[in-house]
Amino acid sequence: MTNRDMWYLGPNNRLSRRGLLLGATAGTLGAAASAVAPAALAITADPQDTVDLSRQYDFYGTGGQAGIRTPPQRHVFYMAFDLTSGRRADLQVLLARWSGAIAQLMKGETIGEVEPPRDSAVGFDTGEALRLGPASLTVTVGIGPRVFSDAYGLADKRPPLMRALMPLPSDAFDPYYTGGDLSLQACADDPQVTYHAVRDLARIAKATGTAAVRWTVIGFGRASAGKGQSTPRNLLGFRDGTRNIREDAEFDRFVWISDGPDWQRHGSYQVVRKIKMNIENWDTHRVSDQNNVFGRHKVSGAPLTGTKESEQPDFQKMDADGTLVIPPTAHIRLAAHESNDGIRILRRSYNYTDGLSEVGLLDAGLLFISYQNDPAHFEALQARLGASDALNSYISHIGSAIFYIPPAPAEGSYIGEAFFT
Amino acid sequence: MTNRDMWYLGPNNRLSRRGLLLGATAGTLGAAASAVAPAALAITADPQDTVDLSRQYDFYGTGGQAGIRTPPQRHVFYMAFDLTSGRRADLQVLLARWSGAIAQLMKGETIGEVEPPRDSAVGFDTGEALRLGPASLTVTVGIGPRVFSDAYGLADKRPPLMRALMPLPSDAFDPYYTGGDLSLQACADDPQVTYHAVRDLARIAKATGTAAVRWTVIGFGRASAGKGQSTPRNLLGFRDGTRNIREDAEFDRFVWISDGPDWQRHGSYQVVRKIKMNIENWDTHRVSDQNNVFGRHKVSGAPLTGTKESEQPDFQKMDADGTLVIPPTAHIRLAAHESNDGIRILRRSYNYTDGLSEVGLLDAGLLFISYQNDPAHFEALQARLGASDALNSYISHIGSAIFYIPPAPAEGSYIGEAFFT
Repeated sequence: MTNRDMWYLGPNNRLSRRGLLLGATAGTLGAAASAVAPAALAITADPQDTVDLSRQYDFYGTGGQAGIRTPPQRHVFYMAFDLTSGRRADLQVLLARWSGAIAQLMKGETIGEVEPPRDSAVGFDTGEALRLGPASLTVTVGIGPRVFSDAYGLADKRPPLMRALMPLPSDAFDPYYTGGDLSLQACADDPQVTYHAVRDLARIAKATGTAAVRWTVIGFGRASAGKGQSTPRNLLGFRDGTRNIREDAEFDRFVWISDGPDWQRHGSYQVVRKIKMNIENWDTHRVSDQNNVFGRHKVSGAPLTGTKESEQPDFQKMDADGTLVIPPTAHIRLAAHESNDGIRILRRSYNYTDGLSEVGLLDAGLLFISYQNDPAHFEALQARLGASDALNSYISHIGSAIFYIPPAPAEGSYIGEAFFT
Repeated sequence: MTNRDMWYLGPNNRLSRRGLLLGATAGTLGAAASAVAPAALAITADPQDTVDLSRQYDFYGTGGQAGIRTPPQRHVFYMAFDLTSGRRADLQVLLARWSGAIAQLMKGETIGEVEPPRDSAVGFDTGEALRLGPASLTVTVGIGPRVFSDAYGLADKRPPLMRALMPLPSDAFDPYYTGGDLSLQACADDPQVTYHAVRDLARIAKATGTAAVRWTVIGFGRASAGKGQSTPRNLLGFRDGTRNIREDAEFDRFVWISDGPDWQRHGSYQVVRKIKMNIENWDTHRVSDQNNVFGRHKVSGAPLTGTKESEQPDFQKMDADGTLVIPPTAHIRLAAHESNDGIRILRRSYNYTDGLSEVGLLDAGLLFISYQNDPAHFEALQARLGASDALNSYISHIGSAIFYIPPAPAEGSYIGEAFFT
């Protein structure tokens, strides 16, 4: 008789109703359940935990583009494109039309008629987000390395630090999820609003013959309590982003480009990585091991050297045996600015799921998006993480791209206009 | 020179800044834009359009299971399972443990410890929904046709109308998305809450060796204005569900099984279809044609014979030429109870997207879920739709399954307990 049988079979090896009902609430996993008392963690319902779907952000005149400094919304639809036209004017027109359309979408408006009165007309807007409101939509436009070339007359406008990312030890790319000439990061508190925005922008690109979809990822995430104060959890169950950049001075120092001509100032570099997580494998491991992989406690988010999420990790602290409390290969140690010459990057990631893998396991992970004023900062951090991070047994970087993010346009202008003057 | 060039090139064939900026807001699609004035539809922001993520529903003692009559939430994670154990007791235990866990999840609680104090322990709960609240979660458990067999000692408990669906003219199944012995329909206003619920319930099934994941679909949708009054839109941009079942008497007549023993009363049959929509193809068609396909106006949702969504369609009305205003092949005509001996079914569908298809087109559609007290009702409707519906050029039914939905358990019981007595 297995352990499993014991807890639900009664004295005569007959299924006991009482045993079943006890078992039903006595934890959840097979063999272990017999030894463990019920221990549900009660979550207090917060009446303020509401999402206001009428909230909107400005597109024009905001310095850096919206969707970087903006408090993270709950959904992302990310899409990368290949340019299908070699004409400078086509690129210019697409950026202008995208800008006009994004400004309308961010106000919760359509980009044109859904149901034109003339019988012969195709709709400008596909209509599925009608009356869903702005839902905090932001659409952030990126321009890939290949665009800054003689082909488009833009070789002299190449941002000084723009280049392909160097190969990193964590790379395990599926070519299907790499690269691109243009990108859209649409974030909102409603997935139908993000889907509509990207779909209709992609339609403009296709109808004008200027760009075609290359790859796409849809993601979700939520900080608890609806106040933008707490840290969202990834699908490994851990908080992700505790020590993220939050202050103006940090944005100025690490995110926004602060010098050079107009088309550089308040620009930034966006790195996007599709990181697959082997969550079913992860789920079979002891939580104490998981804590050591991250260097934090799973529930509280506190560093292993403390009790509160907000506490600074003590990377020097030893336990009684003289071993480091936060292990040498812990994710937060390797990623910390203390370990990286003070370097910091803004992370703005979302969870994704692709359903099931070919072998029937849950196929899920993290759409990692970072913003920094020097791509070398991402490379330095990821080179260290990719080489030593205890998390590497559970994740792989299957997609990667880099884009330059021009500053937000002034009212009456469009994204990237300065490139063409 | 193409039409496209004309609107953004100035008099000397030079790109005109004014033309560009006008063009940016002058509609969105290439060739047609030159002829059309800006016509954005302003959407009034509704301050009441908020989602309360602390809302919760009862699991026990509700007559029919939660997730059927419950007002549609914004997200679904649907998963079908194969039984991997042939033992009656294993099935019984799984249903009991799922029931206990679902009751906790619907209260916004974990299903057990996330971070057990003992160093050797695996977590019972994977933790990614900690403190996200109940978010209106419901989890609806279904039991497939094969389960009601001698193998599980349940042949005599087979619901009288339970059987495989008959082949229908719209069938174009990918075997990957068909069938199953058990199913979970998790709906909530937060995707991380639905993901966590199904993931942890699947973990119980796997850890006990009782059931393995067969297929899964993740979906989203939202009625506007946050008051549950208006009708969500599908990814073809049309309202879906205008004439849905809403009243008690209709539920009693068409959804709930009203006779037979305890394990039948307030049960129902769930039909689930994964319906792929060729949205990029659809988007190239004239909206007047789209309206004729549905028999409704795209923006208002009104039948072509009226001006308001709530108006009854006039299926007899002819225009001046003597042709029917709502065409003979219009979706709402074929699906109407007036055309089907009064038959109605409860639809509770969600939009889904699978990213890009193999040929680079947007891969999206509808996870159609219906509830009815006789599967023949679905078959009758779908036989008619599959044969004649003008919508068939744009959709295909790529997945299908049927499940019996037992009634909600009383407190102190579990889903399906009556099968085993």
